[in-house]
Amino acid sequence: MTQTSSASSSPESACLQQTLRPQVQAFSAYVPGLSIAEIMERHGLAQVIKLASNENPLGASPVVMRRVRESAGSAFRYPQAGTPRLRKAIAAKLGVTPEMIVPGNGSDEIIDLLIRVRARPESEHFLAFSPCFSIYTLQSALQGVAARQVPLNPDFSFPFEQLASLATPQTALAFVTNPDNPSGHAVPAQAICQFVESLPHSCIVVVDEAYVDFALPVETYSMLPHLQKYPNVVVLRTFSKCYGLAGLRLGYGVMHPWLADALMRVRLPFSVNLLAEEAGLAALEDDVFYAETVRVVAEGREQLTAGLTALGCNVQPSLANFLLFRLPAGCALTARQVFEALLARGVIIRPLESYNLPDALRVSVGTAEENAVFLDALEAVLGNRS
Amino acid sequence: MTQTSSASSSPESACLQQTLRPQVQAFSAYVPGLSIAEIMERHGLAQVIKLASNENPLGASPVVMRRVRESAGSAFRYPQAGTPRLRKAIAAKLGVTPEMIVPGNGSDEIIDLLIRVRARPESEHFLAFSPCFSIYTLQSALQGVAARQVPLNPDFSFPFEQLASLATPQTALAFVTNPDNPSGHAVPAQAICQFVESLPHSCIVVVDEAYVDFALPVETYSMLPHLQKYPNVVVLRTFSKCYGLAGLRLGYGVMHPWLADALMRVRLPFSVNLLAEEAGLAALEDDVFYAETVRVVAEGREQLTAGLTALGCNVQPSLANFLLFRLPAGCALTARQVFEALLARGVIIRPLESYNLPDALRVSVGTAEENAVFLDALEAVLGNRS
Repeated sequence: MTQTSSASSSPESACLQQTLRPQVQAFSAYVPGLSIAEIMERHGLAQVIKLASNENPLGASPVVMRRVRESAGSAFRYPQAGTPRLRKAIAAKLGVTPEMIVPGNGSDEIIDLLIRVRARPESEHFLAFSPCFSIYTLQSALQGVAARQVPLNPDFSFPFEQLASLATPQTALAFVTNPDNPSGHAVPAQAICQFVESLPHSCIVVVDEAYVDFALPVETYSMLPHLQKYPNVVVLRTFSKCYGLAGLRLGYGVMHPWLADALMRVRLPFSVNLLAEEAGLAALEDDVFYAETVRVVAEGREQLTAGLTALGCNVQPSLANFLLFRLPAGCALTARQVFEALLARGVIIRPLESYNLPDALRVSVGTAEENAVFLDALEAVLGNRS
Repeated sequence: MTQTSSASSSPESACLQQTLRPQVQAFSAYVPGLSIAEIMERHGLAQVIKLASNENPLGASPVVMRRVRESAGSAFRYPQAGTPRLRKAIAAKLGVTPEMIVPGNGSDEIIDLLIRVRARPESEHFLAFSPCFSIYTLQSALQGVAARQVPLNPDFSFPFEQLASLATPQTALAFVTNPDNPSGHAVPAQAICQFVESLPHSCIVVVDEAYVDFALPVETYSMLPHLQKYPNVVVLRTFSKCYGLAGLRLGYGVMHPWLADALMRVRLPFSVNLLAEEAGLAALEDDVFYAETVRVVAEGREQLTAGLTALGCNVQPSLANFLLFRLPAGCALTARQVFEALLARGVIIRPLESYNLPDALRVSVGTAEENAVFLDALEAVLGNRS
C-alpha cells in the first residue's frame, strides 16, 4: 500500500478522536528514555554504564540464560494457559498455596487487573501517597477511577493516618510501595498492618514489594507473614530486580483465593510468555545468584552512600537497590545539569522531575566497579574537572 | 507463613466477593487444556502429535532460535518502552509508517486496548458474528460493553448485511476474523470494504487477520491495501502462526495514527518483552521460513482435505492453517468420542463445543508426516481398528 502520512491533525482525525473515551483523550503520552545505543551514538561514547532503572548489577543469572537458550526451540508452542507450573513453584518458595499466586506480564499487569476487577468507573477512587509509581495512577485513570493522594513527609516517611483519613466506602484500593521508590524508604510490616486495620475491609490494600528483597531482614518488612490475617491485602513481587529478569516481564501478586480466583478468571490466558515462565522457574532455583545479588547490593549501597557523602551530597537512607541524593549545598549546577553532564561521560542515572523532585537524583546500585566509575564521574562534574 | 487454605467458600470471602465489579463476579473461569506432558502421562504415551492450536508445523525458525539464544544475556535489562525498533521493522515490511503500528503482548492485548480506548462501559456495544474469537466477548464483558451478535450462515459465510443492520450510534466496535476460526472461511477484502461503508464512521472495524498469510493471494484477502481509505479500520496480525512465535506472545495492530497514538499512550510501556521483540525482528528477516511455512500449509491442507474426504468426512473449505470437518454420515461415534479416541492414540485435535459446534472437529495442518499419522489414527478410530 502507499505510505500513509500521520493524519493526527486532519479534520477527520480530530473528529474521530472525539469518539474515544474521555479518559483516553486526556492521557499524556509516555515519553521513553533514550536507549543505551542511542546515548552512545549521540555522545560518541564507546561504553556506557546504566544505573538508571534499578536493574540487577550482576546481569542475568547463568542458570536463567541456560534455560532460555534450551527453551528457544519451544517458541512456536503456546504457553500453558494460566502458567500453572510457575504458580506452583512460586507458591512452594513462599510457603503459600498455588491458589494464592497470580503471575503477570510484569507486576504492571497485576496492578491493572486489580483495578479492573475491583474499582467501579466514575464512582470509586484509590488511595496512594504522592509521588507514587506512575502505573497506579495511569491504570486507574484509564479505568475512570479517581486518585486521592497525600504527599509523603519531607523525609519520605509515610503519613499513614492522613491517607487513611481520606478513606470512604467508595475507596476501592490503596497502594503502598515498600520499600518506596524513588526514596528507598521502608517501614516494618507492622506499620502497614495498622494502616490496613484503619481502613474499611472493602478496600483492597496493595503492598508493592518490588524492592523488598533488599530490605533485610525481609520478614520484618514484608507483609507476607501477615497475609493470612488480612483477606483484603495483596503483596506484589517482581522478577525484574533481584532475579534479574526485567526484560522478560514477570511479576506476580500474592493474595487470598477469593481475589486471586477473580484475577485468574479475567486475565488474558497467555499473558505470561513461555520463555518468561521457563526463566522464572530457573531463577527460583538459583539461590546462589539471588544471595549474591543481595550481597552486592548491600555492599554497593554502603560504597555509594560513603562516596556521595564524601562529595558533600545529601543521601537518603535506602533499603532498596538505589539511592536518592541531593547535590551539595551551594552547588552551582542543577540536578538536571548534573544528570546531563554524567550522561556525556557515559553514566546514566535518573533525574526525578517526573516524581516532582527536580532537585534530587536517583542512582541504582551497580557493581563495585560501576559504582566507582559513577562516583569518579560525579566528582569530576561537581569539581568541574575535565 | 502458614499455608492458607482456599477461603473462597468462607462467609467472609463470600462477602468480599460482593465488593468486586458485577462484570467480574459473573465471569466464567477459563478452563485450560491439558499440556502435552500431562496427556503423555495420562495415556502412557511416548510421543504426542499436537494439531490443536494452529501452531507452526515447522516449529520455530532457526534464525529466531539463534537470535533468542544470543539475546538471553540481555534478560536483566528493561525493554525499550514502546518497542520502537519493532514498530519500524514491521512498518517497513508492510509499507506503512511506524506511527500506524501498535505492537502488543499477543494481538489479545491490542483487542483489549481497542475496547478500552473506544467503548464506554454500560452504554455502548460491539458487533460480531457468532461464534467468534472468545477474547472479543471476554474483554468486552470485562469492560462492561454488551455484545450484539448474528449467527454465521450454515456454510460459515458472513451475513454482513444482517450484522450491519444492528448498528446504532452506540456501536463502538465491530470485529471480523478473516479467514475465520474455526471454519477457515475467508472473504475478499472487497466484501469487508462494503461492510465498513455500511456502518457509522464512529464504529471502529477490527479485521483480525491472524490467518491471512495462508489465504493466497494475500492482497486479495487482506484489508491492508484499503487501510488508507478507512480511518476507522484496524488490521490485526500475529507472529503466532506463520512466524512460529506463539509462545513469545507477539502481535500487532495496523491503524491510522489518530487511533494508534491513543493505544500507544494508554498501553503498559513494557508489555512486549525483550526476547519477543528480538525474536520478532529476526522472524521478519527470515523470508525463507515464512515462504516454507506457507508452502507446507498449502500442501498439508490438500493432503488433509483429500484424506478426510476419502474417509467420508465432510470438510469445510479453508484458507487458514486448519480444517473444520464433520464425521461421515451414520458414524456411530460423536465428535467428542472421536477426539478422545485420537487423544488416547497420541493425536491432539480440537473439539468445538466451546464454539457451539459439538458435531464438528478442527485439525491444524501439521507436517506431511504428522498429517499422515493423524489420518491413519482417524481411520483406525472410525473403522474401530485396534
